[in-house]
Amino acid sequence: MPKLTTNSYGKSGVRLTKVVRNGKTHTLHEYEVSVIITGNFAAAYTDGDNRQCIATDSIKNTVYVVAKENAFDTAEAFGILLANHFPNLYKQVKSCTVEITEAKWDRIKVGGKPHVHSFVNGGSELHTARVSVAKKGKPPVIFGGVTNLLVLKTTNSAWKDFWTDRYRTLKDADDRIFATSVTAEWEFDGGKVDFAKATEKIRTTLLETFATHVSLGVQQTMQAMGEAALAAEPAIKNIRFRLPNKHRIPFNLDPFGLKFEKDIFAWTDEPYGDISAFIER
Amino acid sequence: MPKLTTNSYGKSGVRLTKVVRNGKTHTLHEYEVSVIITGNFAAAYTDGDNRQCIATDSIKNTVYVVAKENAFDTAEAFGILLANHFPNLYKQVKSCTVEITEAKWDRIKVGGKPHVHSFVNGGSELHTARVSVAKKGKPPVIFGGVTNLLVLKTTNSAWKDFWTDRYRTLKDADDRIFATSVTAEWEFDGGKVDFAKATEKIRTTLLETFATHVSLGVQQTMQAMGEAALAAEPAIKNIRFRLPNKHRIPFNLDPFGLKFEKDIFAWTDEPYGDISAFIER
Amino acid sequence: MPKLTTNSYGKSGVRLTKVVRNGKTHTLHEYEVSVIITGNFAAAYTDGDNRQCIATDSIKNTVYVVAKENAFDTAEAFGILLANHFPNLYKQVKSCTVEITEAKWDRIKVGGKPHVHSFVNGGSELHTARVSVAKKGKPPVIFGGVTNLLVLKTTNSAWKDFWTDRYRTLKDADDRIFATSVTAEWEFDGGKVDFAKATEKIRTTLLETFATHVSLGVQQTMQAMGEAALAAEPAIKNIRFRLPNKHRIPFNLDPFGLKFEKDIFAWTDEPYGDISAFIER
Amino acid sequence: MPKLTTNSYGKSGVRLTKVVRNGKTHTLHEYEVSVIITGNFAAAYTDGDNRQCIATDSIKNTVYVVAKENAFDTAEAFGILLANHFPNLYKQVKSCTVEITEAKWDRIKVGGKPHVHSFVNGGSELHTARVSVAKKGKPPVIFGGVTNLLVLKTTNSAWKDFWTDRYRTLKDADDRIFATSVTAEWEFDGGKVDFAKATEKIRTTLLETFATHVSLGVQQTMQAMGEAALAAEPAIKNIRFRLPNKHRIPFNLDPFGLKFEKDIFAWTDEPYGDISAFIER
Repeated sequence: MPKLTTNSYGKSGVRLTKVVRNGKTHTLHEYEVSVIITGNFAAAYTDGDNRQCIATDSIKNTVYVVAKENAFDTAEAFGILLANHFPNLYKQVKSCTVEITEAKWDRIKVGGKPHVHSFVNGGSELHTARVSVAKKGKPPVIFGGVTNLLVLKTTNSAWKDFWTDRYRTLKDADDRIFATSVTAEWEFDGGKVDFAKATEKIRTTLLETFATHVSLGVQQTMQAMGEAALAAEPAIKNIRFRLPNKHRIPFNLDPFGLKFEKDIFAWTDEPYGDISAFIER
Repeated sequence: MPKLTTNSYGKSGVRLTKVVRNGKTHTLHEYEVSVIITGNFAAAYTDGDNRQCIATDSIKNTVYVVAKENAFDTAEAFGILLANHFPNLYKQVKSCTVEITEAKWDRIKVGGKPHVHSFVNGGSELHTARVSVAKKGKPPVIFGGVTNLLVLKTTNSAWKDFWTDRYRTLKDADDRIFATSVTAEWEFDGGKVDFAKATEKIRTTLLETFATHVSLGVQQTMQAMGEAALAAEPAIKNIRFRLPNKHRIPFNLDPFGLKFEKDIFAWTDEPYGDISAFIER
Repeated sequence: MPKLTTNSYGKSGVRLTKVVRNGKTHTLHEYEVSVIITGNFAAAYTDGDNRQCIATDSIKNTVYVVAKENAFDTAEAFGILLANHFPNLYKQVKSCTVEITEAKWDRIKVGGKPHVHSFVNGGSELHTARVSVAKKGKPPVIFGGVTNLLVLKTTNSAWKDFWTDRYRTLKDADDRIFATSVTAEWEFDGGKVDFAKATEKIRTTLLETFATHVSLGVQQTMQAMGEAALAAEPAIKNIRFRLPNKHRIPFNLDPFGLKFEKDIFAWTDEPYGDISAFIER
Repeated sequence: MPKLTTNSYGKSGVRLTKVVRNGKTHTLHEYEVSVIITGNFAAAYTDGDNRQCIATDSIKNTVYVVAKENAFDTAEAFGILLANHFPNLYKQVKSCTVEITEAKWDRIKVGGKPHVHSFVNGGSELHTARVSVAKKGKPPVIFGGVTNLLVLKTTNSAWKDFWTDRYRTLKDADDRIFATSVTAEWEFDGGKVDFAKATEKIRTTLLETFATHVSLGVQQTMQAMGEAALAAEPAIKNIRFRLPNKHRIPFNLDPFGLKFEKDIFAWTDEPYGDISAFIER
């Protein structure tokens, strides 16, 4: 007889906007939230007995109610509230994982000054937060992160001296364009931390390291970015990266009697080098 | 000092078309391939020493060369070839994971008969294959699957008798629309198997079970689909599902003096119920 | 002083599901609808005077109410109902254009027979309908169409003898893969017509012509498809195409000591040849 | 006999990166280009006679060669070069339209100062340029624009006093969130102009007007944005908008015994109000 080994469910794509009004100055919290729970739900699968199931619609309602009834200033803080809510309230819930993505809304500058209630999208990047509570009363495991942070440098990037065999056709490159879409996720160590400040410090460190590193490869720059982030923010234990190599390919100008001078490239989305690492203290 | 705990890299988004010409009848293999390897590559991260690194460009070349030099009839078979290739050839490679997605190309019918060399996209669904070799000489772990298989039934689907508390606003539904985008992945048991036949058998079983099951919830139908797939295809050990609930929401006709008769709905992509299970023999 | 020369507004992305229950056999109409109106609305722009404006939310409501109160069997028929509704009901509305896209839902086959109430997505293609009423009482202009209909043929396609100059690097191809995503739109002549039959006849004709045409170029095949559609369906006056060339590029096997035998290709989305025509009786 | 009434073709999705190196300071031009031509090409459609056709692959090559051989500092300037190139060089080409989209790459700030060669994506918005040459020797028609510029304001936006009838369910709103994705396109008057400065001035004007306008509706704010842009930049003749209303819907807190205080909203992509205007001097 087949057996149901593991199961989980929840609501994803829950889109919350919370406006906090402090006099004329408004703060915007806009998240896309996913809440996944595990627990005593096997009967719904095996017998269609839904009595222990909190409907995913109720989970959606909870996201908005928790947002209403609590103050929070970051996606991480909101994630902690939500990830505790379910195991705390329901005896049939064992674990809860909350994942949040947050677009970058910058204040519009009017006459050079940030506006009090108007915002513009400030980058394709998304801030991410992920919080898991394994069991009622256990401390949450908290991750912050960034995804789709597009960066590009036009020099100080090489890729050479790699393995040569029958399958190699790529030449050594002393000076190439390096473009990537940074996905990084870091784990907080559980102590007190100002999440907003930490996110800003890590983001700035990642960007500055990317900009200034003299790169011998995506791998080496990734390591440098990870080491710099761990050095800059003591409240994180580790950092994980995925850096797809968004290739800018030298356009072959030979047939036209012209010379490539590191100036004319074709940009492509695929295929792409797909490079990952996990760096810990 | 931070340490590099794990790392991996490879090439993703490699898009291969292979045409096999058997007289006038052509067969089309069109895949999007990802190859990720682990091994002795830490020096590239920590020292920019790339000498052990096979360039991701070489990995891309390998996909095409292996496709040229070998006969295969399924994504699973091609995945096995590729996943063995890297640990077998390179002493510095430890493990290799190949992931493949394949669009559904059906033969165009001309005068009712399948054409010998012309094809039309036969559904938004993708066939998936995933093959991992943990170490040179180890047998591959082989998964088949399907993703984005959109299905909808207009009746024989209920959702009721679930948990009631402050957060519930959804009423019991005796008869609702059930729509989902099936993602399923099954693990082959390592014996001899005709992958194409197995895929077809499982796909048909999933569709027929979805169509005919009298559903008390996504969870119960998922379990029924899993049990039916395991019963239909002895060569698989387990099956894993993710079924997002693509809600069709009854449109409130009251303000217009009209009555909802299970006829008029709004369809939405988000938020969505997000339901998973892993079912084993 | 700047002047408001033209303006229009409406609601887009209105997602309607209508289920028609004929005993145990259910029919599914699932559309994404856009309704755009013009008329006497300038005051809303110039003075913030909204008194003549039908809210876009009311337009959305109307889509569902019209769907409830009327029988229709095609997107074209529903478009005609909606496009007449607004100029007929509101003196301030001059023109109305309705655009509808419809996914392909096929009945799931159970034991080889189409199921009465369960459906599976039958292709990435969308059926399109577009209906415009220029003024109350004027007959509607009605277009049917298809978009994102992906087709591919592995032979009987050449591209050669084209212009040669400094900018040409492409060689003549006697036998290449031809893949495209068909967008076609045809205008009905205003007489009585069974839209569903016409759509099916034109779609079949487009596919069969694509499959069997011995092609000297996308342009020539497009013309052949247009002529065949006009010949097959007397109720249409003209047809318009856009056929992006979804290139399958021969993979250069020379560096690996292998020979390209029209077998190994890379597929790409961009850049793409972008070819259009408008063909009339 | 069916006749080919109009036809056009070209290459789309041509992705160009040009790096201009001014000592250590590098400037990045990264465009996605579409080139569409009309002319004496009917024989390719009707007879498969391709002798007058410039291959779309040659058009792609031309984009890169023109980029190499010419200096330009904006997408508009590059568009003018390309749109003239084809009618000037080929007697069989009549008209040429070039469309360009350009992502926003900002310099990464290192220690607060813009870096000389490293960039980060600065918003989901795209700058657009469109240049048409109707015939060899005719002056080009030049459009600049912006698309996908996401903005949101949390107050100073009303929508009330609109038409009331059976189809209305929306209440008057004195104070709502107004979010949109701005698409605007403006036509230059053909005189000398610094395109970069004009784009920046118009973009700033659009943002500032959106931020500070006390809005009685999307329509009124659109008009105000258009008038402000025309006032700010004398080199443009007209401006065209499409502002989809990206709704933030008050979440109904009543069932939970809570009160909506303009604080908790659900954000949605569809359905959306879809509002357009064309404003001229």
